[in-house]
Amino acid sequence: MPVNLTTPAAGELLPVAGVSLGIAEAGIKRPGRKDLLVMQLDEGARVAGVFTTNRFCAAPVTVAREHLAQGGGIRALVVNTGNANAGTGEQGMRDARATCAALAGLLGCKASQILPFSTGVIMEPLPVDKIAAGLPAAVANMRADNWFDAAHAIMTTDIVAKAMSKQVQIGGKTVTVTGISKGSGMIHPNMATMLGYIATDAAVAQPLLQQMVSEAANRSFNCITVDGDTSTNDALMLIATGKSGAEITDAGSAGYAQLQAVVTEVATHLAQAIVRDGEGATKFITIKIEGGRDEAECKKIGYAIAHSPLVKTAFFASDPNLGRILAAIGYAGVGDLDVAALKLYLDDVLVAENGGRAASYQEEDGQRVMKQSDITIRVVLNRGAVNATLWTCDFSYDYVKINASYRS
Amino acid sequence: MPVNLTTPAAGELLPVAGVSLGIAEAGIKRPGRKDLLVMQLDEGARVAGVFTTNRFCAAPVTVAREHLAQGGGIRALVVNTGNANAGTGEQGMRDARATCAALAGLLGCKASQILPFSTGVIMEPLPVDKIAAGLPAAVANMRADNWFDAAHAIMTTDIVAKAMSKQVQIGGKTVTVTGISKGSGMIHPNMATMLGYIATDAAVAQPLLQQMVSEAANRSFNCITVDGDTSTNDALMLIATGKSGAEITDAGSAGYAQLQAVVTEVATHLAQAIVRDGEGATKFITIKIEGGRDEAECKKIGYAIAHSPLVKTAFFASDPNLGRILAAIGYAGVGDLDVAALKLYLDDVLVAENGGRAASYQEEDGQRVMKQSDITIRVVLNRGAVNATLWTCDFSYDYVKINASYRS
Repeated sequence: MPVNLTTPAAGELLPVAGVSLGIAEAGIKRPGRKDLLVMQLDEGARVAGVFTTNRFCAAPVTVAREHLAQGGGIRALVVNTGNANAGTGEQGMRDARATCAALAGLLGCKASQILPFSTGVIMEPLPVDKIAAGLPAAVANMRADNWFDAAHAIMTTDIVAKAMSKQVQIGGKTVTVTGISKGSGMIHPNMATMLGYIATDAAVAQPLLQQMVSEAANRSFNCITVDGDTSTNDALMLIATGKSGAEITDAGSAGYAQLQAVVTEVATHLAQAIVRDGEGATKFITIKIEGGRDEAECKKIGYAIAHSPLVKTAFFASDPNLGRILAAIGYAGVGDLDVAALKLYLDDVLVAENGGRAASYQEEDGQRVMKQSDITIRVVLNRGAVNATLWTCDFSYDYVKINASYRS
Repeated sequence: MPVNLTTPAAGELLPVAGVSLGIAEAGIKRPGRKDLLVMQLDEGARVAGVFTTNRFCAAPVTVAREHLAQGGGIRALVVNTGNANAGTGEQGMRDARATCAALAGLLGCKASQILPFSTGVIMEPLPVDKIAAGLPAAVANMRADNWFDAAHAIMTTDIVAKAMSKQVQIGGKTVTVTGISKGSGMIHPNMATMLGYIATDAAVAQPLLQQMVSEAANRSFNCITVDGDTSTNDALMLIATGKSGAEITDAGSAGYAQLQAVVTEVATHLAQAIVRDGEGATKFITIKIEGGRDEAECKKIGYAIAHSPLVKTAFFASDPNLGRILAAIGYAGVGDLDVAALKLYLDDVLVAENGGRAASYQEEDGQRVMKQSDITIRVVLNRGAVNATLWTCDFSYDYVKINASYRS
C-alpha cells in the first residue's frame, strides 16, 4: 500500500485558467477503466518539457519533441494509458501522428499543435482506432475543474492518484500551479518521470519555461527511483497559459525565483508521490549524501544504495542489516573513496564510522528506525561540500507479484 | 530451487597432490553447520588471485593481498563462513591477522604464509576466539580427498555445493584441476566471485599463474550477476602445487593454453553454478550481446538487462513481456545506439527488429521459450565485431524472502 500518501480532495485541485481537461474510456485497458485524457490549452499558452533519455524512446516522445521544436503553438496534449507505443518501430510513429491528426480534426487546429503521450505495455501496437473513437467523448468531457479525474485517468499500476495545487502572489497577481503525475514501476527517471503535467497561469517566455522545467525536473523527478528501470516514455511537461496576468521575462527576477520554487515544490511532491506509491512499497526512504566532491559522485553512491536489492529487501523486513549499505557505498564506483572517513546515519542514529560499526551503535536503535514507514539514510562523505538527496522505496513480495503479472 | 544444478559425487572430485583440506564446526553459524575450512599447501606451491573492487573490501581481503604481495610462499588458506569481517574497521584487521597467527602456530609456518577469507554478515565483529578454538579440529581433519566436504563447508545461503574436477594431458603428464566456489546472493563480481578456489598440480611460474587466474575470472566470474550487488569479500584463488611434474613457464606454450582452457572451464562451471543456485532462482538466463563495438558496451547492455527487476520478474512469471528487454537496452547508457539496427532473439525466436516487434514474432513462440528453465537472450547490435556473454537468473518471491530474513 502507498506509504503515507493520499490523493488530494477534488476541491483542493485548483483550475488553471486557460487549461481544460477531458477524460474518456477508450477501451485500451480493461472495461471500466478511464484510459484517455485530453488537455486543451487556450491560444497563447507556452509549453516546455523534458523527456526520457532511453534510446528506445517511445514514438509519442519523438513526435512530441518534433511538435515542440516546430514552435507553432501547442493547443492540446493527449495521453493514453494501457499501451506505451514504445518498441513499435515505424508503425508506432504513424500511430502517434494519427492520434494527433484525429484530435486536431476535433479541435480545429493543426496536428503539429498536439503533443501525444502514451504509457503502458511496451512492444504492442497502439490501438489507434480505439483512441480515435474515444476522443470525441474526451473532448465533450472537457472542463477546467477536471484535474482530479485527469489524475485518475493517467494511472496504470498506480494505486493512488497524484496531484497538487499551490498558489503564490507574483507582482500583485495570484498565480496558480497545479500538477498531476503517474508512475509506480519502471521508475528511474533520467530527465523526467513516467508522466507529469504541471500548468500555471503565469506568463513565462519560452526559453525561461524550458529552464524552469529542467531545473524542477533535476531537483524532483531526476532524484527518484523505484527499481532502476528508466522508462521509454518519461515526460514532464510545464504549461504556462499567461491568464493570471503575471508575466515573467527575466530569469534573474524575483517572480522567476518565486514561480520556480513553487513549480519545484509541486514537482517534488508529484515525484515523491510516485515513490510512495512505488510498486509494492511499504517504506519511503530518503537518501542524503553529504560532503561529496561533486553531484555526480553523490548521486552514484545514492543510487547504488537505492538500487541494491539487498538494501531494499532489508528495509522491507525492517531488519537493520546495515552492512549492506556499506557494501553498496563501496561498489558505487567512486574509485578513490576513503571508507574510513565516512559516516553512516539512519535518521539520527550514527551507524558506522572509521570503516566499521560505530562504538555507540546499538542494534535496538537501528531496529527502532527501521520500523518507521519514513526513513532517512544519511551518508557523510567528508571529502567536499556538495550534497544530493534521492528518494526511493523498499522491495517487497508485492513488487515481484505486481511485475510477474502486469501486462496491461 | 537451483536450476539444473547438482553437486558432483564425492568420488568425482579428484585430489590435487600437494593440497590437503580440513573442515570443522567452529560455532560461528548455528549449531550443526560446518563453518571453517583450512587448505594446507605443500612447500613450493604457488598461489595467485583476484579480489573484489569494492572500496569497503573486507579485512581478510586486505590481509590476503598483503601476504600474497610479500612473496614468502603461501602454506595455507583459511576460510570462515557466517561472518564477512567487512565493515569492521581496525578491529577487523586485527582479527584477520589473529586468525592467520593462530593457524600459523598450528602448522609451524609464518602468519604471513596464511591467506584468510571470510564470508557472511557484514559489519559484525569476527568471532575470532571461536575460529581459533575451531582450527585444531580443522587441522586434524585434513585429507587430500576432502574437496566434497570443503565445498559444503564454505556455503552460506547456497543450497547446492559447487565443485568440479577436470584432467588434461600436458607434456605427457596427467594434470588435475579441481575447484570449489560458494555464492548465491550479493553476486555481481568485479574481478572475482564471492569465494572460489581452484587448485592444479601443474607447476606454473608466479606471473603466469596471475595471468591465468585473471583471464579465467574475466571469462567466468566477471560475467555473472544475481542481484547486481558486488560483495565486499569476493576472491578467486588459483593454486599450483607442481606435484604432477608438468611445468609451464611460457605464456605462449601449448601447455599454457591447455591449462588455461581447463582452468577457465572449471571457473566457468563454478561461476554458472552460483547463478543456477542464485537466491530464489527458478531460471538460468544466458545473455549474449553480439556485434558490439567493444566489450564495454556489450557488457553495459548485458548487465542492464541482467539487473532489470522488471526483466527478471517477467522471466520468473514465464511471461514474454519482452518490451522490458528493449527498455533495458535503451537505458543501458550506449548514447549513440541505433535501436532500429538491432535484433533481439529469445533462443531461436526473433522477437524484435527495425525498432519494434518482428512481423514474424508470435506470442506463443515467446511463451514456449519462456517456460524453459534455461533461456538465452541474444541481442545482435550490428555495429561492430565484439561479442560478450553474461549469465544471470530471474527474480522471485523467494529472493525477497531469503533476503528479508538472512542475517547469518
